[in-house]
Amino acid sequence: MKTTALYGSVQDDLGKVEQIFDSIKQVDYGPLGAMLDIVLSGGGKLLRPALVLLSGRIGNYNLDLLVRLAASVELLHTATLVHDDVMDEADTRRGRPTVNSVYNNSTTVMLGDYLFAHAADEVAKTDNIRAIRLFSQTLKVMAQGEIRQDIAAYDSRQTIRDYLQRIGGKTASLFATACEGGAVVSDAPETWIEGMREYGYNFGMAFQIVDDILDFTGDEADLGKPAGSDLLQGTLTLPSFLLMENQPAANPIQAYLGDRSSQRLDEAIQAVRSSEVLDDSHQMARDFCDRAIESLTPLDDTADRQTMIDLANYILERKS
Amino acid sequence: MKTTALYGSVQDDLGKVEQIFDSIKQVDYGPLGAMLDIVLSGGGKLLRPALVLLSGRIGNYNLDLLVRLAASVELLHTATLVHDDVMDEADTRRGRPTVNSVYNNSTTVMLGDYLFAHAADEVAKTDNIRAIRLFSQTLKVMAQGEIRQDIAAYDSRQTIRDYLQRIGGKTASLFATACEGGAVVSDAPETWIEGMREYGYNFGMAFQIVDDILDFTGDEADLGKPAGSDLLQGTLTLPSFLLMENQPAANPIQAYLGDRSSQRLDEAIQAVRSSEVLDDSHQMARDFCDRAIESLTPLDDTADRQTMIDLANYILERKS
Repeated sequence: MKTTALYGSVQDDLGKVEQIFDSIKQVDYGPLGAMLDIVLSGGGKLLRPALVLLSGRIGNYNLDLLVRLAASVELLHTATLVHDDVMDEADTRRGRPTVNSVYNNSTTVMLGDYLFAHAADEVAKTDNIRAIRLFSQTLKVMAQGEIRQDIAAYDSRQTIRDYLQRIGGKTASLFATACEGGAVVSDAPETWIEGMREYGYNFGMAFQIVDDILDFTGDEADLGKPAGSDLLQGTLTLPSFLLMENQPAANPIQAYLGDRSSQRLDEAIQAVRSSEVLDDSHQMARDFCDRAIESLTPLDDTADRQTMIDLANYILERKS
Repeated sequence: MKTTALYGSVQDDLGKVEQIFDSIKQVDYGPLGAMLDIVLSGGGKLLRPALVLLSGRIGNYNLDLLVRLAASVELLHTATLVHDDVMDEADTRRGRPTVNSVYNNSTTVMLGDYLFAHAADEVAKTDNIRAIRLFSQTLKVMAQGEIRQDIAAYDSRQTIRDYLQRIGGKTASLFATACEGGAVVSDAPETWIEGMREYGYNFGMAFQIVDDILDFTGDEADLGKPAGSDLLQGTLTLPSFLLMENQPAANPIQAYLGDRSSQRLDEAIQAVRSSEVLDDSHQMARDFCDRAIESLTPLDDTADRQTMIDLANYILERKS
């Protein structure tokens, strides 16, 4: 299934979000324009903007306001990716050079701030204080999730609960806001708004778990980064936690955390790949996905609701 | 003159801004609390919040809304300082250890993002879309100013005009927003709002030029950083531009840019100190200060207006 067919009735309207990015790229200052071109022409799937628009379909679909929110959500996501890449010293993303591989780190940090500013500006254009506060609250939760991940690097004393809290902050919160915000801007009934928030949150949890599985199973061509990148950076994800839980006495994850050699890393990756923890992780993603779909029950049974169900199932099976 | 006496009728109300910082510091997650304690207990002068409140005095002084805006402006300023310190690899600020000297750079970048989130959240609490948009526009301009400064490092082809544009973005824009925002939130008449913006902008230009002079003349104890820090980082400021202009053929600034040794740096600092360019720079700051005061002409002749005049004169003579 092509992603282009996945977004149903809002597919064509995503072009308006890209128009906003095009106008943001038009700046007087050449070096800034070149940097914006790298981060805003990356061929992302616009999954979060699509969720904003789909959520808007359940109320009064005011496209002019919704595309502002959709652009804001994607810009916020992009800003955090730019800061992530500086933190990770990543050279490529989606197979293309990162800004920090072309410019220096400090300039790249400021580019992230510049993108936050645009994100804040776009959401302000919705003229909707509730959407604006959702935005600022979400950035708070996301930044705290990233800080927790960073402080917890290489720390084997974390639990699965810590992991779920962390990915809830750094990933699911923005999906929740995309869906809740779309419903808020469209003046949907409160129970539907709450349902969309639940859908987005659980969708985001499933999305991140699948991402963390792909980090072990994917190949570099699909991922645009080497397999095992998370472990290499000391980030423990669900498969690692499950492996440690299954083999509490001695396991290759803890062995790697203890010496961090590339041989230990390879052993840890192989141990994860050859065990049942990837299937177990996928089952947890499936559970979040089911909860996401369950959250849509109160909505009218429309083609848009079906698109949201299909999308949740799709992200579970994706390969990149 | 003590700064504590400088803020006139709004002096005591600044305590409410500090209360907001105290509540932001109360978080469940210990490491985050420790970091917030470093950046939000720094004993800053709260100059920008004072300007917000003073500007609010010219209209309907709604303290509950104004302290939100005042906190937002200071948080935005603090977030940029945190990102600056990462960029500059600074170990101390105001004589105290920086966050990035205690935690790693990536965690510090995320802390800056977390502070942006709080800044966005506080301004959203004003329920004033115009103030919110001022905020996001300002962050855009500030980030672009920082990017320009970074890209222009060690580049002797810049002009004084480039310098003024850059400090207008990275510094004066936030002072302008503090003053304009205070007047907006207080529903002041449009001509007064415009006057406050002009006052804040010119005040900020004078403030930054004095800062750039102090980087050459101040001692480490007062500044909390070594003298000549700007040049060391390749940042050319007004005194350097004036020296290059006075001695176009061969001058110690260009000699330093060409080889960047500590001997060349010392020679450049001494050349600036022993020439008339510091006086000329101070005269330019004086001109901006006069323009700031001139901008207050339309306002009623009140004690608050006099406080704003005194404050502009004070920042011109400050030693740290």
